Amino acid sequence: MTKIDVQKKIQDENDRMAAGNRKAFTDAGLLVLNLISSPGSGKTTLLESTLDRLTDTMNVIVIEGDVSTQRDMDRVRARGASGVQINTGGGCHLSAAMIDEVLGELDLEAGDVVFIENVGNLICPSTYDLGEDVRMVLLSTTEGDDKPMKYPAIFHESDLAILNKIDLLPHLTYDIEKVAGEIEVLNPKCEILRLSALTGDGMDAWIDWVRAKLAEKRGELS
Amino acid sequence: MTKIDVQKKIQDENDRMAAGNRKAFTDAGLLVLNLISSPGSGKTTLLESTLDRLTDTMNVIVIEGDVSTQRDMDRVRARGASGVQINTGGGCHLSAAMIDEVLGELDLEAGDVVFIENVGNLICPSTYDLGEDVRMVLLSTTEGDDKPMKYPAIFHESDLAILNKIDLLPHLTYDIEKVAGEIEVLNPKCEILRLSALTGDGMDAWIDWVRAKLAEKRGELS
Repeated sequence: MTKIDVQKKIQDENDRMAAGNRKAFTDAGLLVLNLISSPGSGKTTLLESTLDRLTDTMNVIVIEGDVSTQRDMDRVRARGASGVQINTGGGCHLSAAMIDEVLGELDLEAGDVVFIENVGNLICPSTYDLGEDVRMVLLSTTEGDDKPMKYPAIFHESDLAILNKIDLLPHLTYDIEKVAGEIEVLNPKCEILRLSALTGDGMDAWIDWVRAKLAEKRGELS
Repeated sequence: MTKIDVQKKIQDENDRMAAGNRKAFTDAGLLVLNLISSPGSGKTTLLESTLDRLTDTMNVIVIEGDVSTQRDMDRVRARGASGVQINTGGGCHLSAAMIDEVLGELDLEAGDVVFIENVGNLICPSTYDLGEDVRMVLLSTTEGDDKPMKYPAIFHESDLAILNKIDLLPHLTYDIEKVAGEIEVLNPKCEILRLSALTGDGMDAWIDWVRAKLAEKRGELS
């Protein structure tokens, strides 16, 4: 087989496994979000800040994806999430098969929302469906304001883009309107939220967004 | 063939092409550096600041790798570099074959130093030899101080690590000694420089490092 045949076979097999995961999540009434970004854009800090605002009213499950270490799982467990850490070894993205493999370790029936924190990478995870309801991308203001057009695939594929670390804007040369404009050009359907997971600025709108998506999904299921 | 067979074949073919690139670069007396980091860690800004300090005394060639756009090539050309932009489409790293393909467009004999700016990705480029003399990784202080152990492969493979954006340290919770310590554990031979490509702080030591490496290479060749 050529490299392209192998890639097509991998993608087809991934889509098949993702459909199975989606059915398992939906049968349990869960809202599932797949978080994608570069290393260090603040995915885990966003989860910590989100857990602080959700765990009093709902059960949150986190699936942590990393090349190496259990560090992120330790952090979210300390904030009240249950879940599991996946280490990919050298793999540059999570796959639907990796999610399928850990489903048995999770108490899906007891959960409300599942956050899947993908491996830190703005390219490889873009096209791998994991069975989620929402694919979302984080950008940090410290990464420079030229990123959407340089990494277009993930913006094409995302339902939501979060522009994080807005607390650092006074110390940076960063045109946030330019970034939002580029995302709108790439994908007019992609919603955009601006926040600082560290200071909490903008977090209320994000929490409302998650609650509304959960209500919407449960409305469709009832 | 299995996925693993294909991967092995791709790596072997890459190594063969990299050896050819290395011969072409060395025959022309060039020092070649392969810059790897996450998106937005400051590779292009480092190149701009470096070009401002080198182009009065030497000819610098830049090979720019990006998924999409010519933006980075426009930036370094404006600072006096010659070179070429490679767009990978969706590809998550440069390969030796991609470098081989553009060698004919470069005036190698007229050059002194070649900087290859890899695709923004802390995982995939780690193990692809391009024929360079120096493999180097950039980390930005805004990415959080837990990254080396989470992305160990690139630190195992690098000769130099640059900790960039030290001008933002007063506004961050970031333990730079912890980061340096983790790199030392992963690879005691990896040198570490701390700088701000934006403010110029620490740039002199980096420029001295490049000049010394060029002198060393030319000494070996003479």
